[in-house]
Amino acid sequence: MNNIAMMMDLYEMTMANGYFLDPEVRDTKVAFDVFYRRNPDGAGFAIFAGLEQIVEYITEMHFEKDDVEYLRSLHIYDEKFLKYLEDFRFHGDVYAFEEGTIIYPNEPVITVVADIVEAQLIETEILAQFNHQSLIATKAHRVVRAAGGRGVSDFGARRAHGNDAAVNGARACMIGGCGSTATVLAGQKFGIPVTGTMAHSWVMLYQDELTAFRRFAERYPNNCILLVDTYDVVGSGVPNAIKVFQEMKEQGIQPANYGIRIDSGDLAYLSKKARRMLDAADLTDAKIIVSNSLDENTISSLLKQEAPINAFGVGERMITAKSEPVFGGVYKLCAVGRDGDWEPRIKISDTLEKTTNPGLKDVYRIYDANGMAIADLIVRAGEKVDVREDYRFVDPARPWKQLRFQNCMAKKLQKKVVENGRRTFDPVPVPEIAAFVKRQLETEIWKEEQRFENPHPHYLDMSPAYYQMKMVLLGQGK
Amino acid sequence: MNNIAMMMDLYEMTMANGYFLDPEVRDTKVAFDVFYRRNPDGAGFAIFAGLEQIVEYITEMHFEKDDVEYLRSLHIYDEKFLKYLEDFRFHGDVYAFEEGTIIYPNEPVITVVADIVEAQLIETEILAQFNHQSLIATKAHRVVRAAGGRGVSDFGARRAHGNDAAVNGARACMIGGCGSTATVLAGQKFGIPVTGTMAHSWVMLYQDELTAFRRFAERYPNNCILLVDTYDVVGSGVPNAIKVFQEMKEQGIQPANYGIRIDSGDLAYLSKKARRMLDAADLTDAKIIVSNSLDENTISSLLKQEAPINAFGVGERMITAKSEPVFGGVYKLCAVGRDGDWEPRIKISDTLEKTTNPGLKDVYRIYDANGMAIADLIVRAGEKVDVREDYRFVDPARPWKQLRFQNCMAKKLQKKVVENGRRTFDPVPVPEIAAFVKRQLETEIWKEEQRFENPHPHYLDMSPAYYQMKMVLLGQGK
Repeated sequence: MNNIAMMMDLYEMTMANGYFLDPEVRDTKVAFDVFYRRNPDGAGFAIFAGLEQIVEYITEMHFEKDDVEYLRSLHIYDEKFLKYLEDFRFHGDVYAFEEGTIIYPNEPVITVVADIVEAQLIETEILAQFNHQSLIATKAHRVVRAAGGRGVSDFGARRAHGNDAAVNGARACMIGGCGSTATVLAGQKFGIPVTGTMAHSWVMLYQDELTAFRRFAERYPNNCILLVDTYDVVGSGVPNAIKVFQEMKEQGIQPANYGIRIDSGDLAYLSKKARRMLDAADLTDAKIIVSNSLDENTISSLLKQEAPINAFGVGERMITAKSEPVFGGVYKLCAVGRDGDWEPRIKISDTLEKTTNPGLKDVYRIYDANGMAIADLIVRAGEKVDVREDYRFVDPARPWKQLRFQNCMAKKLQKKVVENGRRTFDPVPVPEIAAFVKRQLETEIWKEEQRFENPHPHYLDMSPAYYQMKMVLLGQGK
Repeated sequence: MNNIAMMMDLYEMTMANGYFLDPEVRDTKVAFDVFYRRNPDGAGFAIFAGLEQIVEYITEMHFEKDDVEYLRSLHIYDEKFLKYLEDFRFHGDVYAFEEGTIIYPNEPVITVVADIVEAQLIETEILAQFNHQSLIATKAHRVVRAAGGRGVSDFGARRAHGNDAAVNGARACMIGGCGSTATVLAGQKFGIPVTGTMAHSWVMLYQDELTAFRRFAERYPNNCILLVDTYDVVGSGVPNAIKVFQEMKEQGIQPANYGIRIDSGDLAYLSKKARRMLDAADLTDAKIIVSNSLDENTISSLLKQEAPINAFGVGERMITAKSEPVFGGVYKLCAVGRDGDWEPRIKISDTLEKTTNPGLKDVYRIYDANGMAIADLIVRAGEKVDVREDYRFVDPARPWKQLRFQNCMAKKLQKKVVENGRRTFDPVPVPEIAAFVKRQLETEIWKEEQRFENPHPHYLDMSPAYYQMKMVLLGQGK
């Protein structure tokens, strides 16, 4: 009794039953857009993650007998609808940005085109995956950026919000740029590198710290990171570690990877002190790894203090995105098929930013002659976009301005990922997605959008025809 | 490839392999305590949740062939250890507080007594469940308390950190006092009430709002909550809802549950305005439900403004515990069996609060003559505790004071929940756990510990013998 198809809000089922029983509505084709409204942490962008899990969910979705039995027991749903669920499969199409794409508010990262019943039933799980993984990938990237090239490993499983949060969270951390995770199941499922040496319990089990370190070094001479803060970092931990490293050298052992981990106390002070002690013992290649409630701010602070740290283990604050643990992705009806055509739909709000972008649409990323992404552009579905010569567009925040793209390139961001309920692409390995993120940030995305403080907002422009259509709908007030 | 046994940090496996191969250590019996150090949100207590999932995990834990194959592929582990994993079962004992117990920092909520290899391998998942569910139950209780008796429903699935976060999170919300959840899978798995009516998509699908409302009312006359903020709450949503409710009445339909939901805008203003409009139409029993980024603070503010709200749908801020999304539970070695006796172990820190409580121990809750819980008490395992007459104890924050319990009652908080790897109790239905939480807060826990602002800290006292043992260990510095 753990069928992911049942991971939905009850109102999806209640609405679906209503649509199913309404002959005027039942076969209506609709389009839903997935988008978000605000970058977490005041950032200039987010990273799209979770597409693979969304596609797996949609293409495998079905209801088991006991699921239907449970729904029957609620005495809300019609018997014909329950029978329909027994044979349910998703038959629609899904369009999405490539996983790992740098994304911005209010653009349709995913669009579902399907019968209203099918489209409604998949809402919650799409949002849960989109929101969770995009949140963590975006946060992880901040941490990785703060570490300035030093390794960052995900240590978060124990503080994650349950197993999926740990495992898919580790996946998202890798997409955001982490080098490894401590979570074994994530390593197994996604083929990502796993790391892990010792906890305080190893040190506390043995009669003394030196014995504990010696036993570990005997067992793992090639990957020997000793945890030095069980009792007293400077007074016993580092001296005992040095003794063991020197004993290894005397025995002719040259470990591929060795050093210490500090998991408490003033990490700046302790890492400097430990570095000096290690160097004085001629162990200049011994690494110093730190952990303990780290995030992009504490890491920036440590590096500003010139703490001689080689790598960071980052747990609770990354795996929960503690500074802002909610990614506000939504799933909004944007168009309804009628008489072979698509009628746009809009959700109105008091502010223009919270009003949805109606209708079937295409989204392009516009690049200048140097390959830098200068804006994203929403146009009516199928509209021709040629930005090489002279393309007039509207900035909806300043519609009175006469603006043009010239000498630019346009890349369509959505691709079909599910067609008639079947996936259209092979799963992309996580390291490839991570490399795609890195490439965009290094070569396409303005540094001004990437800074932590007051980043430049990315433009989301519209074609004149699209803008005109939206304004007409707004004028009608529905 | 989704075996929960693999939900661990790699270092558990690395340490376990090391212990397994060390003949002096391999059969060592150990005890680990699970505790946390600080209540989230500056609160005076937390709520223990997740025990059922922990016990299921421990008693069912095993490794599949492909799990062992994956571990073999890492080239870290000895073949004898990998063979051992193939037949792995947990054979130890686990002691725990009853699920739903009001808990305080630094007391052992769970204690694992087992061989070191087995005890080490279960660390991560125990912590993940303990941390996640205790976090959400504690947060949910704050929201429920702010609602002052009005219903609170969990609407969080789409913003939860993945499926477990949504489903076990819904369970934790119920333990914290919510009346229902929108998450279908949680209803199915845990037998908890589910609710859900319509989203904006229902309203937007139809040609106009009035038609959408009419169709819903025809389909669901007995549970008819209409979402009124798709276009304009006051201008169209509430008037159209009133029209439909009046039509129902004219047809002689008396719905068991009907009313409106407002999901955006100024909820205080709009709920007052809507209430007046409904009352003027003689629909005084129509309910007003609100949602949209609610938490204990926004709910308190709405009620202070006398917003006439009947129930709250609470999503992202409860299911992620947004105000403080990390529950810092830890798993610390406290005792090692040696020569038929137990040697205490301590993890030292610069502050007394972060230093662990060593040794095998019993924890009692001490009640005064009125049945109020006045303190918790840690004693050495098996120590006799009789607080009826005159019991001298130590407050470790003020050890110089001469303190006594008199005319009190003591209740031992830990019970054996797993014995030789098998569970010792039947699963407790979630509503029973929720009722237990409620009863404690109403009849046992001081209101001074329950207030949001500057709550009174609960005392964690020690028997003189226990305190003495801890001080001796601290003096030895390890």
